[in-house]
Amino acid sequence: MPTQSEKPGEFDVIEACFRPLTKNIPGAFSLTDDAAVFTPPKNKQIVVTKDAMVAGVHFLETDTPENIARKLLRTNLSDIAAMGGVSFGYLLSTAWTNDTDITWIRKFAAGLAADQEEYGVSLLGGDTVRTDGPLTFSLTLMGTLPNGQVLRRNAAKPGDLICVSGTIGDGALGLLVALGELTLSTDQHNEDLNDRYRLPRPRVSLGPNLLGLANACLDVSDGLLADLSHICTQSNVGACVYQHKIPVSSAAQEAVQMDARLWEKIVSGGDDYELLFTVPATQKNLLVKLAERLEMKLTVIGEIIENLHLDYLDQNNNKIIIKTKGWSHF
Amino acid sequence: MPTQSEKPGEFDVIEACFRPLTKNIPGAFSLTDDAAVFTPPKNKQIVVTKDAMVAGVHFLETDTPENIARKLLRTNLSDIAAMGGVSFGYLLSTAWTNDTDITWIRKFAAGLAADQEEYGVSLLGGDTVRTDGPLTFSLTLMGTLPNGQVLRRNAAKPGDLICVSGTIGDGALGLLVALGELTLSTDQHNEDLNDRYRLPRPRVSLGPNLLGLANACLDVSDGLLADLSHICTQSNVGACVYQHKIPVSSAAQEAVQMDARLWEKIVSGGDDYELLFTVPATQKNLLVKLAERLEMKLTVIGEIIENLHLDYLDQNNNKIIIKTKGWSHF
Repeated sequence: MPTQSEKPGEFDVIEACFRPLTKNIPGAFSLTDDAAVFTPPKNKQIVVTKDAMVAGVHFLETDTPENIARKLLRTNLSDIAAMGGVSFGYLLSTAWTNDTDITWIRKFAAGLAADQEEYGVSLLGGDTVRTDGPLTFSLTLMGTLPNGQVLRRNAAKPGDLICVSGTIGDGALGLLVALGELTLSTDQHNEDLNDRYRLPRPRVSLGPNLLGLANACLDVSDGLLADLSHICTQSNVGACVYQHKIPVSSAAQEAVQMDARLWEKIVSGGDDYELLFTVPATQKNLLVKLAERLEMKLTVIGEIIENLHLDYLDQNNNKIIIKTKGWSHF
Repeated sequence: MPTQSEKPGEFDVIEACFRPLTKNIPGAFSLTDDAAVFTPPKNKQIVVTKDAMVAGVHFLETDTPENIARKLLRTNLSDIAAMGGVSFGYLLSTAWTNDTDITWIRKFAAGLAADQEEYGVSLLGGDTVRTDGPLTFSLTLMGTLPNGQVLRRNAAKPGDLICVSGTIGDGALGLLVALGELTLSTDQHNEDLNDRYRLPRPRVSLGPNLLGLANACLDVSDGLLADLSHICTQSNVGACVYQHKIPVSSAAQEAVQMDARLWEKIVSGGDDYELLFTVPATQKNLLVKLAERLEMKLTVIGEIIENLHLDYLDQNNNKIIIKTKGWSHF
């Protein structure tokens, strides 16, 4: 972290907060040098991603510093998992505002520390600057992949089953709860959704296990239908997906019972960080076994077709029309 | 680049601007996927750095988009070179403002394209967001290093010669010229300094050639004396450095003849992006040969000492007192 703001004393405190996060990577040189060094394991490729987050756009000002840090790390963990990679280290750029005090930074670093423990990653380097604008972060995450293997978006085949992990829509509905625009009957339901919005749960154990099984994969961040359309565009195929097969939490179930229009939020809201992938129909038994082994809900929600359109259908096979931008371009 | 702003049409234009920058790296997947993949060459380590730049702090609003892009890339190239690495690829996060139009982005990408050509690097991935604050960029640059080798700050030894490439102070004086606070007698001199501020020239050929020769190395970004104090602190040594030995350009020479107080700017202004390194005195002949081979000015400006202080001396060995913060802490 060579670039430092000049606020007196801050340099040391930042070092005190961030240096401990490098303890598992000798080549981070305790953040003393211009760059970090690591030796890639044999027969592995490196997989690398980079995502930025801006206050007011990607997180709420009312989010805790711990959760902002963890969300930043987890959205990147989700990207690496979606490619089938196992993450090991990250670089972090932070642009603090004049309001960002040391207490805030300490909590932010504590959030990173907690998730480093949970996900087995370490800080490699980065830098710290000041901004007159909103808090802005950028994180570069690196992982490894077995040589010659990778999950991409462009290899879905007609006949593939379209699968999704976990439940869909909780993140988008959680944002409504956080903004006070949706209130469910129980605190538990409100909290469940809110939690899912504030803290993604990247499917780090699933991604690497889909290598050799899934034809195409990505993580659901733009919205289920938008992300499915990305797979279709890249793979030059179409898709049929059934609303009644989309897995939703009991909180989301209550929400759509209150207002069926919230289905649109569920399938197009995004921020799910579940994996959406396609599997040859002949491999369905492997899919079931994988779900059992990982103790993870994996649901078939439709199938890949040859025709280049994305059909979103109800249980009577009638098309459901969605107005939200993004997937409709397809 | 999975995260995209929703401005209609922009997605395609950004693709049109940035996708071509990935053409030499198949594992960038033309920016279609969540992450990029590359296979590290055998017997090499990976060296990685990340620097952010904020408008008004790290560049002037009046800088051209081409130069902002190139400065961003070059400051990172300088960091990798300072560790002895050879850069190959980078990830880029951009936070555009509402004023950033497509023409600006095209020029920014053209600046990157020019420097990709010049420095042999390619875009691997990244993302694009919007901000209500100032234009903000973050770049992660990766390079390779021979196994087990690296230039660090912490291995300077008493008796080492302190060396610097090129000339010092042009960047800091160039900022004064750019701000209208300094005007030299000839357009050529004004332009020379201005150019050095706006467009660093990272010493990419020098760094890898210092592996096995230099004991310690970094690039001068905080200021010559501040950066020398970083080497001293990390290496637990001191240094004597002589003002009259510090190499300056003819433009800088004119500046200090006009106002001798500008010496302080030269040694503490920063933004030089020259390499500052220490070499065992016994290797002086190798240093001379290297300078000849690279056709690069390499100047000995002092020596590393055992005593833990940094002496900045005039030709009569009298100490020169500097008020600028940073190095004086040492």
